[in-house]
Amino acid sequence: MARVRATVRDVAAATGLSIATVSRVLNGQANVAPHTRELVLAAVGRLGDQAPRPRAEQAAGAVFVRCPYLLTDYFGLIVSSIAETIDLHGRQMILNAGEAAQPAETLGSLPGRSGIAGAILILPPEEPAVLVRLRDRAFPFVVVDPRTPPAKDMAAVSAAHFAGGRAVMAHLVGLGHRRVGIIGGPVEWLASEARLAGYTAALAGAGVLPAPELTRAVVEPNTRNGHRAAAELLDLPERPTALVAFNDKMAVGAMWAAAERGLSIPGDLSIAGFDDIDVSRATSPALTTVRQPLQEMGRTAVTLLMRILGRQAVEALHVSLGAELVVRGSTGPVPTVPLVSH
Amino acid sequence: MARVRATVRDVAAATGLSIATVSRVLNGQANVAPHTRELVLAAVGRLGDQAPRPRAEQAAGAVFVRCPYLLTDYFGLIVSSIAETIDLHGRQMILNAGEAAQPAETLGSLPGRSGIAGAILILPPEEPAVLVRLRDRAFPFVVVDPRTPPAKDMAAVSAAHFAGGRAVMAHLVGLGHRRVGIIGGPVEWLASEARLAGYTAALAGAGVLPAPELTRAVVEPNTRNGHRAAAELLDLPERPTALVAFNDKMAVGAMWAAAERGLSIPGDLSIAGFDDIDVSRATSPALTTVRQPLQEMGRTAVTLLMRILGRQAVEALHVSLGAELVVRGSTGPVPTVPLVSH
Repeated sequence: MARVRATVRDVAAATGLSIATVSRVLNGQANVAPHTRELVLAAVGRLGDQAPRPRAEQAAGAVFVRCPYLLTDYFGLIVSSIAETIDLHGRQMILNAGEAAQPAETLGSLPGRSGIAGAILILPPEEPAVLVRLRDRAFPFVVVDPRTPPAKDMAAVSAAHFAGGRAVMAHLVGLGHRRVGIIGGPVEWLASEARLAGYTAALAGAGVLPAPELTRAVVEPNTRNGHRAAAELLDLPERPTALVAFNDKMAVGAMWAAAERGLSIPGDLSIAGFDDIDVSRATSPALTTVRQPLQEMGRTAVTLLMRILGRQAVEALHVSLGAELVVRGSTGPVPTVPLVSH
Repeated sequence: MARVRATVRDVAAATGLSIATVSRVLNGQANVAPHTRELVLAAVGRLGDQAPRPRAEQAAGAVFVRCPYLLTDYFGLIVSSIAETIDLHGRQMILNAGEAAQPAETLGSLPGRSGIAGAILILPPEEPAVLVRLRDRAFPFVVVDPRTPPAKDMAAVSAAHFAGGRAVMAHLVGLGHRRVGIIGGPVEWLASEARLAGYTAALAGAGVLPAPELTRAVVEPNTRNGHRAAAELLDLPERPTALVAFNDKMAVGAMWAAAERGLSIPGDLSIAGFDDIDVSRATSPALTTVRQPLQEMGRTAVTLLMRILGRQAVEALHVSLGAELVVRGSTGPVPTVPLVSH
């Protein structure tokens, strides 16, 4: 059971402001002087988790969150942190999720729906033009992990795909790998392109150009497709000494392909992923990967949206959050004996 | 892009009913004759995915979904299917999720909140009395995976924990295991008790009573606690030949403990989990487990709630869905040579 919360009345008493003014601040409404807002937020800050939260029926419009995918690790972590942060702002979250939501034409009707203040769109499957139309109708929204480059004036949050890709490849290059197979994501995704550019930059730094024969792209980045692509790469006449996969699920598929061929990891073959979801710690050896700041991405998206709703100046519309290389047991020094498939 | 949808007007024309009547049926409202409802649903069924969906602003009250946990595999799969099914019923879903939502006193205010028709509560952390008070206020809700035995007149959906526990232990007993370590869930959870009863029943069928020294309970069923409990069991003077864990995450922790002790799986030690989440296929060998029908649980919960909202008779208020044993590589015959720790 939670401790007793202070009421809006208590904050009003502490600040000398009216209850209505305190409510306006807590509900994120725009018509409050900056000084007043600071006064209220300071008082609320002192109360810590006994601070009042606006009752839902008094709260400002809800935030519509669209995540038309299964909420497993990757998407689930983003949606959880979005839910927690929206709640902190005293707003309701309306969720549109699950793969069945993917083909629905949801976005066009959003501006007309009552009770909805704005939206957060996670890896939206819609064509760029659909997002542009939504912006043209002045509907407030933030895109998380955009598939295609967002327009300049469209708020977007993503991980530092390029830097993450470069870091993981630099790690492999540092271990002596030069012949690295790349299991890339869907060709039309921004994340695929940026990570590939990162891989290429790190290889080029070691004087190596990525060989087209060593690069694969998949339509959907899942374990099965990772397995298939890795099998192709490992059956090449001159086998790669390392594989980098677009995500951890595909890296797990690559581990299966290695096991089927009797290759030990990392003795014969190094494998690295991207994301750092739960499975990356369940494999044996555990997976070297790039940790995406999923929960931080969710929090940042809500904060950006609240600023837009509050008509505050938003300096950086495109926020890219750092992704961190996590070295575990699946990567090691390049084998000294040249390995040739037979 | 989705195909063009038929409108409510089209369904009205096809059935000869008024637009208002068709809308009432599609919005799940109660004041419609059964024959009329069938007529509309048959016409909608013929349209397949071109069937109209009620616009949100016309729809009946929203469904409040509370899942105060991180939405990773287990909870994420349930929430995804709930989202998809609520959408099929043309209602909005308001989500309250994330671990930060756990201490909040959310339920007491639900009956007073406007625009909310009912709720789905997933593994509610609240005391049973809180749920009883909500029921006494005639607020419609369904509990998914209750922690404690739900009152008779409270709708609840869960997996067949007892049958699942018995199936996995019967599998181990069939492989010759008699000394089986049990890494149980939190003692106060209904699921822990029911799975433990299932384990016990299967062991008793082979003439074995579970030894208290071979049973552990954890406060939170995560990988770290599974690792710790398994380490204790594997360091007993007479080591168990198999371990069953309350869930897959704890089974992964048990695999770590086995690896640290140089035990091969399943040669020296069999390990089984429960849930069948993604990690159970990423381990090496893959994990024998019990598949919980998570998505079916979500769908069933929404269907139950819609019937309650439609004031239709609900025959079975406590629905228990079958859980299926999935045998993979982590379980095998009991070692023939007696194994003693040293």
